[in-house]
Amino acid sequence: MKQSHLFTKTKKESPTDEVAQNAELLIKAGFINKEMAGVYSYLPLGLRVIKKIENIIREEMDAIGGQEMKTSILQNKEIWEKSGRWSDKDIDIWFKTKFKNGGEVGLSFTNEEAYANILKQYISSYKDLPVYPYDFKSIFRNEARSKSGILRGKEFYWKALYSFSKNEEGHNEFYEKAKLAYRNIFQRVGIGHLTYITFASGGSFSKFSHEFQTVTGAGEDTIYIDEDKGIAVNKEVYEDEVLKNLGLEKDRLIEKRAVEVGNIFSLGTRFSEPFDLKYKDENGEEKLVVMGSYGIGLGRLMGTIVESLSDGKGIIWPESVAPFKVHLLSLGDDDKTNSEGDKLYENLSEKGIEVLYDDRRDVSAGEKFADSDLIGIPYRVVVSKRSLNDGGFEIKKRTEEKGKIVSFEKLTEEF
Amino acid sequence: MKQSHLFTKTKKESPTDEVAQNAELLIKAGFINKEMAGVYSYLPLGLRVIKKIENIIREEMDAIGGQEMKTSILQNKEIWEKSGRWSDKDIDIWFKTKFKNGGEVGLSFTNEEAYANILKQYISSYKDLPVYPYDFKSIFRNEARSKSGILRGKEFYWKALYSFSKNEEGHNEFYEKAKLAYRNIFQRVGIGHLTYITFASGGSFSKFSHEFQTVTGAGEDTIYIDEDKGIAVNKEVYEDEVLKNLGLEKDRLIEKRAVEVGNIFSLGTRFSEPFDLKYKDENGEEKLVVMGSYGIGLGRLMGTIVESLSDGKGIIWPESVAPFKVHLLSLGDDDKTNSEGDKLYENLSEKGIEVLYDDRRDVSAGEKFADSDLIGIPYRVVVSKRSLNDGGFEIKKRTEEKGKIVSFEKLTEEF
Repeated sequence: MKQSHLFTKTKKESPTDEVAQNAELLIKAGFINKEMAGVYSYLPLGLRVIKKIENIIREEMDAIGGQEMKTSILQNKEIWEKSGRWSDKDIDIWFKTKFKNGGEVGLSFTNEEAYANILKQYISSYKDLPVYPYDFKSIFRNEARSKSGILRGKEFYWKALYSFSKNEEGHNEFYEKAKLAYRNIFQRVGIGHLTYITFASGGSFSKFSHEFQTVTGAGEDTIYIDEDKGIAVNKEVYEDEVLKNLGLEKDRLIEKRAVEVGNIFSLGTRFSEPFDLKYKDENGEEKLVVMGSYGIGLGRLMGTIVESLSDGKGIIWPESVAPFKVHLLSLGDDDKTNSEGDKLYENLSEKGIEVLYDDRRDVSAGEKFADSDLIGIPYRVVVSKRSLNDGGFEIKKRTEEKGKIVSFEKLTEEF
Repeated sequence: MKQSHLFTKTKKESPTDEVAQNAELLIKAGFINKEMAGVYSYLPLGLRVIKKIENIIREEMDAIGGQEMKTSILQNKEIWEKSGRWSDKDIDIWFKTKFKNGGEVGLSFTNEEAYANILKQYISSYKDLPVYPYDFKSIFRNEARSKSGILRGKEFYWKALYSFSKNEEGHNEFYEKAKLAYRNIFQRVGIGHLTYITFASGGSFSKFSHEFQTVTGAGEDTIYIDEDKGIAVNKEVYEDEVLKNLGLEKDRLIEKRAVEVGNIFSLGTRFSEPFDLKYKDENGEEKLVVMGSYGIGLGRLMGTIVESLSDGKGIIWPESVAPFKVHLLSLGDDDKTNSEGDKLYENLSEKGIEVLYDDRRDVSAGEKFADSDLIGIPYRVVVSKRSLNDGGFEIKKRTEEKGKIVSFEKLTEEF
């Protein structure tokens, strides 16, 4: 894409109403727009990142048998009354609105009820199980405070998968697969080395739930990490008995701030009971389905990547989620430089390499370098009179200090 | 995908609370789930169709210079007050809700305000124009009645593009390109032959807007078609003077019911004025940006395809939007038939041909045929003892009465 075509521009000034570094950088670089506190729109660059993250998650969910669907945002009061989660007394983050012809309706803040209600129509026999439906959708939580940028939104884009299994054994087997799929996701988006599987409180149906916590100073959670074992414990269950149970020693644990980038829960029969979600087993006996839930907020994940990998100059995107792979800067105002830049852009594009081409004519070299660092595309390639004199193009990774000159012919081998 | 893996099943009974044929067929076939009147979830088969439609629209929008983004659903009251469209007196289809810490917020029913507000930050010079941003998002309209299935939802999935041009001339040029792109879209999704560009009322800034109307008995609109010219006039502007203006003769026009599957509007400066959306032209003079809007409801388009192309047995998907290209039915309970079916499924899948493989063992041939007709996948391939004896597989298009036997080797050539 030519940068002259991209409608966003970087901003020199930081937004005055943001305290979160992720939102500050993403707004300055033109990835997102703040609509209200806790509500952001994704501009073209930001949507490209979200789509890369979405595709990685989709691949991992499909690999463990997931079936994608798209459930509604408007939620039926009657369905939520079944599970006892309609009342504002029980759930204090609902957004609710009214139909013109009367009657309240909620905005989806999670998907257990909708899924149990849909699946009830299709599950009657053991042959119908297990099933692992999921969807990507916008979710709404009426949070009182919103100071964490896209780490905690009132509206956010979310993946949720629910597992429907015959029994605890089947559930546990899938739960372990989901753990691995989650590990893969965080590895693939570039924060695996900072992300710990973390024991957290499990609710009524299991001792623990599992969170994936990414270490960053911007985190709202406190976790205690055992580096050798590669696991952590959330503060909420940081007790002597729990540590003993998990075989952890207090003086080997390091306290860190972290962001919960994903969580997986065993739900037992918490939702199959109120929805009477039963199946006939091999002996004709009626049994309740055992459920699990597996969530990831895509905006939060994007924000966490920004928080944990940026530097003083701007964002540093891992290749897997970067809006483009290569940022090609043309610094010349002479025909030769411009035509070499155009040629390289076309050549790389033809090879399927995603390039943002800074072809702007009225912008100084200094500004182009600063923009490139701020936007954070993994490879920067510069074409200028000097680089051509030196034998080609200067290529430099966003994480490197110094670049090197590479000829036109050799350049694509770098990627 | 193996049908034994797909969690949905067809239903024998029609839903009792649907009067619209599109919703009746789509629910029976397992494409959608009704959450409430006017609110539907898309199940795996349904989402596959929506994604095909989305990709076609995306390709056509990108081809005319569109830049995709993803704007928020929650809408800022202050922004809508600028354009005078916040009050329920002016707009009677708002869904509104409240923040916990006070203050009202709306659910997006259209995108003019959000776009003008975002673009204002990035447009200051003639060099920044034209721009054509768009997004796909869920939209909410508080309609009093919802009896048309997915043709008219209270929540629906929607594409909107807005054009920002320097002047009327630039606007008109793009408007004509958008018309062609819309024609391409309806052609590509398989209803081009039923869809007419239709003159409708234009609002305050232009004589006419243009609707794309698809002829079907389920339509809520009445249009008057000139078959020879391939254009139509909406009832709302069906007046002698308008017909004369357009060079149409009353007695050559045919009255039909139709669904508005898309519309394009010239907005003039209706929104750039309240948002003070100005740019400096080549002479340093400040001028207002000229806007246009271009919408398509994806669910409505999917419902229109179902309404206009189905037959007594079920849905007939055009290849371009079908959830799968081939429906492979294995009718045998013998090893030979099953293994031939498995082999063909793997072979076609490896070739990148999308196959739904009805590998269910406990379902009769009659049921499988009925399911296949209901679901409406373009090609049906049957493997059975008899077909193997006859030399291979029976292949039949959904629109054909009779199939033919084709050998394993020749089969892929058919697609």
